[in-house]
Amino acid sequence: MTGPRFTNLANSLPTTVPFIGPETQERARGRPFLARLGANENIFGPSPKAIAAMERAARDTWMYGDPENHDLRQALAAHHGTTADHIVVGEGIDGLLGYLVRLLIEKGDAVVTSDGAYPTFNFHVSGFGGELHKVPYLGDQEDADALVERAREVGAKLIYFANPDNPMGSWHPAEIVSRVVEKVPDGCLLVLDEAYIELAPEGTAAKIAAGDPRVIRMRTFSKGYGMAGARVGYALGSVPLISAFNKIRNHFGMSRISQAGALAALMDQTWLQQTQRNVASSRNAMTAIARQNGLVALPSATNFLTIDCGRDGNFARKVLQELIARDVFIRMPFITPHDRAIRISCGGEQELAVLAKALPLALAAARG
Amino acid sequence: MTGPRFTNLANSLPTTVPFIGPETQERARGRPFLARLGANENIFGPSPKAIAAMERAARDTWMYGDPENHDLRQALAAHHGTTADHIVVGEGIDGLLGYLVRLLIEKGDAVVTSDGAYPTFNFHVSGFGGELHKVPYLGDQEDADALVERAREVGAKLIYFANPDNPMGSWHPAEIVSRVVEKVPDGCLLVLDEAYIELAPEGTAAKIAAGDPRVIRMRTFSKGYGMAGARVGYALGSVPLISAFNKIRNHFGMSRISQAGALAALMDQTWLQQTQRNVASSRNAMTAIARQNGLVALPSATNFLTIDCGRDGNFARKVLQELIARDVFIRMPFITPHDRAIRISCGGEQELAVLAKALPLALAAARG
Repeated sequence: MTGPRFTNLANSLPTTVPFIGPETQERARGRPFLARLGANENIFGPSPKAIAAMERAARDTWMYGDPENHDLRQALAAHHGTTADHIVVGEGIDGLLGYLVRLLIEKGDAVVTSDGAYPTFNFHVSGFGGELHKVPYLGDQEDADALVERAREVGAKLIYFANPDNPMGSWHPAEIVSRVVEKVPDGCLLVLDEAYIELAPEGTAAKIAAGDPRVIRMRTFSKGYGMAGARVGYALGSVPLISAFNKIRNHFGMSRISQAGALAALMDQTWLQQTQRNVASSRNAMTAIARQNGLVALPSATNFLTIDCGRDGNFARKVLQELIARDVFIRMPFITPHDRAIRISCGGEQELAVLAKALPLALAAARG
Repeated sequence: MTGPRFTNLANSLPTTVPFIGPETQERARGRPFLARLGANENIFGPSPKAIAAMERAARDTWMYGDPENHDLRQALAAHHGTTADHIVVGEGIDGLLGYLVRLLIEKGDAVVTSDGAYPTFNFHVSGFGGELHKVPYLGDQEDADALVERAREVGAKLIYFANPDNPMGSWHPAEIVSRVVEKVPDGCLLVLDEAYIELAPEGTAAKIAAGDPRVIRMRTFSKGYGMAGARVGYALGSVPLISAFNKIRNHFGMSRISQAGALAALMDQTWLQQTQRNVASSRNAMTAIARQNGLVALPSATNFLTIDCGRDGNFARKVLQELIARDVFIRMPFITPHDRAIRISCGGEQELAVLAKALPLALAAARG
């Protein structure tokens, strides 16, 4: 009586996961966090109209969601001035990145990303046997030119480029992104992860023709629209690429409630504008808290602040631990020298009060 | 400026999808169905407590769901008399089948299923390059013994076996299932799809030790619990197999609202019992409608009836088309001789009235 035979690839994969959820930490600690500021969730939440739409849809959960995501894709097409055949909706950007990698990457295929960028993308690349080539950041920014250069050198099939960036919160103006697109090598695809784009300054989102075969843009309702728990992402790209998702995706994978919520959220751009103001003012308040504690918050085009703790990674890790010990859930960048910083998602008034109280104590303890 | 380079496998895959959704048909027809009886959705719906839990969770969608699905898995473990490390929760059985196939199957690996069984499983096997070996049904039942025999012959890594079966509604008693498990060849895994098990007669669910490495059971909140649109499935299996899902699954793939709804649904077994009674009485009423029209409904352990139209596949396809033309959404089995039948999901009073009116007209039209 033996067990199943896994593929060699599956056997070779580690059991580590990209992120530990805050609930796991709460269970381990035996008490809840007072401020949940680690997962770049949008505490200002979804539009009340989206909440109402989801409440209404709750009683319709006996029905599968529309596997074509027709209504949402039509609305997204109108929003982006394109047609629905350029859009695929999926279970968050994470889900869509998984599908994309599966379509393009097999054992030994080269993929380029930045060293320290989104680990869930790396998780998918390794999960399909791809070979990751990591380019250093240029300071606190992804090095756009180096990414395409490295892609050319290694014959990469895929480049990951986030704008704005996570975990540093930095961004490139649209012109730089357009220049990168122009330089994508033949047969290579640029994954432009724009998860935070709704929270970035005007002029950050590049104009890219819907049919451009060199790039696929990833968007989400998790950040600006405040619906991380609904798991709705979408990708914009050329028709042949977008339609290829239909060969492999979980066609009935979308929650019907989430479909309804995302549609209502998209229709309420006024709420998004209010969120943009809330996020900007929270960033300002958190920057002030950092400054009061002698720390420097990096400029951010997102709903989180990356705060330089002024020493090395060991010190920042101590600060993080001391904040967590004081019931403030945060995360931090993975690699040196970014790990000199901690990363704190924008909070509301209550969370900022908790942070303002905990940060000086955490710093003192870390310096201790 | 060329497009991306897909894998050879991705290039080879067809663009056909397992199922066309009813919404797609409604858009093509230009009018809605009066009775939605084609997707084996449970029209009696989720527990009111589950609906209330989902409504409450709607305002929490700014937070990601717990990637460990901890609370739901603990509750499921208690429900099944096992521990949570034997349980993985995923985006419906469809999502879990995809993960399972990915863990086990690569190019050329042999997989055994029944000819005419669940196409979405086949979609996943082909999607990962597996080679499908199809065993004929024995009459209207999956041929349990032939499945394991064929698996032994071809050295299969995976056997798909649904109990109860879809699309025929037939079932095997627990003893047969246990016998099949005993005969699973070394190094082969039996996927026991029990999507409809809550609606089957007592004595259908086999007792299988939680640690048995030869079998993985697939369960869902889509059928008995009436939450198809929430996309919550789970698998029960040995710890090494279950933990392997963590190497590849979309950790943050579950909707937070769906997690809350499924937990509340599981806690309300009284509602499930009422659903079981509703489904049984709907099956009886539909059997009577069939009989009044000179047709024979096959015995069913599910929330659908497979109704023998008494002639060949061309005739049944005509009946299906005529029912759809009369605004009754149904589906039918794919292969001969099962395609002598149409498949109708259990309806409530309103749907049964529509069906009772439409069926004689559809039959008359089909008979020409």
